Amino acid sequence: MYNLLVIDDKILELHGQIRFLLGDIDIIVKQKDVVGNIMQEWVKGWLANKKVEYALNDNSQMPPDFYLNPSNKTIGLLEVKAFNRNASPGFDIADFRMYIDEIVKKPYMLDVDYLIFGYDMSDDGVVTIQDVWIKKVWEITRRMKDWPINLQIKDKVVHKIRPAVWYSTARVEYNVFDTKEDFISALEEAVYQNPDTRDRAGTWKIKFLDEYEKQYGVRLDIPRWQNVSNSYVSSKKVPYKHKTK
Amino acid sequence: MYNLLVIDDKILELHGQIRFLLGDIDIIVKQKDVVGNIMQEWVKGWLANKKVEYALNDNSQMPPDFYLNPSNKTIGLLEVKAFNRNASPGFDIADFRMYIDEIVKKPYMLDVDYLIFGYDMSDDGVVTIQDVWIKKVWEITRRMKDWPINLQIKDKVVHKIRPAVWYSTARVEYNVFDTKEDFISALEEAVYQNPDTRDRAGTWKIKFLDEYEKQYGVRLDIPRWQNVSNSYVSSKKVPYKHKTK
Repeated sequence: MYNLLVIDDKILELHGQIRFLLGDIDIIVKQKDVVGNIMQEWVKGWLANKKVEYALNDNSQMPPDFYLNPSNKTIGLLEVKAFNRNASPGFDIADFRMYIDEIVKKPYMLDVDYLIFGYDMSDDGVVTIQDVWIKKVWEITRRMKDWPINLQIKDKVVHKIRPAVWYSTARVEYNVFDTKEDFISALEEAVYQNPDTRDRAGTWKIKFLDEYEKQYGVRLDIPRWQNVSNSYVSSKKVPYKHKTK
Repeated sequence: MYNLLVIDDKILELHGQIRFLLGDIDIIVKQKDVVGNIMQEWVKGWLANKKVEYALNDNSQMPPDFYLNPSNKTIGLLEVKAFNRNASPGFDIADFRMYIDEIVKKPYMLDVDYLIFGYDMSDDGVVTIQDVWIKKVWEITRRMKDWPINLQIKDKVVHKIRPAVWYSTARVEYNVFDTKEDFISALEEAVYQNPDTRDRAGTWKIKFLDEYEKQYGVRLDIPRWQNVSNSYVSSKKVPYKHKTK
């Protein structure tokens, strides 16, 4: 899919436009925030154009957007995200509580492919795709300072899982997860740390491992978060030193 | 302008679309909230198409959007608003503090014409204009329960002046203002009531009247809010009655 988009269809060289047509007037829409929400519609048109079979998810609130293998909805799951490449990724991964429930019930949700577009809109409304990525969830998430996973927290309540800046060449403070197992380790720690989900912390990992094993015939080996958490800190602040008088 | 839009160009009969074109794929954008923000761009295209001369306001944060008489920017001021006709008007009139400063400095700002579109977007993305209005600010604003003007208040701080539902045929609790003078009366009371602007309450009205008189050669006669406030309550709640045993 990446090859088809980037090599065959040269998506990184295309110039797009959002236009509004009403009566004889046809204008170019110059609102950057619109693009993020319409790339999913664009992918739908693109899949149809390529005669790729797909089914849509009835629940637009949860991943995936597309089932690329409609006869078996446990494989070929595709979620589309897009963000303004001149800013940090602004999309949400998922609501934390819904996500921890979901991957226990449907462990194959962990293997959703994220098709991510980094777009630019010029001042005159020309849309270009600067980057395309296909990523797994643990390749676009990270820890934060006080939590094992990067969470949006409002009024002390945990809301969304938020993405890392996974493509940065500049030094970042926290690296993305290396493995699925470490991502699960961080999630479990967050289930415990979050007062709203702590009552599930005792059994969440076991349930997940059982369901995952049922699905894939493999029992994952999840490290304890305290054993891996430091490996995701990529830079240490230089300790403050008193000047010698 | 209203006639040109509604009678000559039959804007209420047109079917519009927002489309996104990238590569060979051309999709219809089905996001209702986008329309509100692009009608201003559409009016720009429409004015150009009609060969109507105009200048744009450099400051996009304050009204007006258009000067229809570019050689004299105190007349022919036009502000464009649009909202989803299936909901209440969602646009802001102006930031309260900026507005009370602005109409003292530029009393002709009080006479801005608001060109307002009530649009609909169907489930398949067809945009239609359900209503068009040209209104003065006092015809689209009203009092609220605890304030003489309908304000957005967040964390006890006054932010935006918000519009009334001026077109409702159903019973509304508070009517729009009848006159420019009553609107000014309500604004003055709000300047006093708002802790952030109270220090200006002693002189605000005098300054405004002086500037308005300089501009138009007329001294307005502003009633006291307490004398007119009750006339804008259009319905009284029926008092609660104990059932007789």
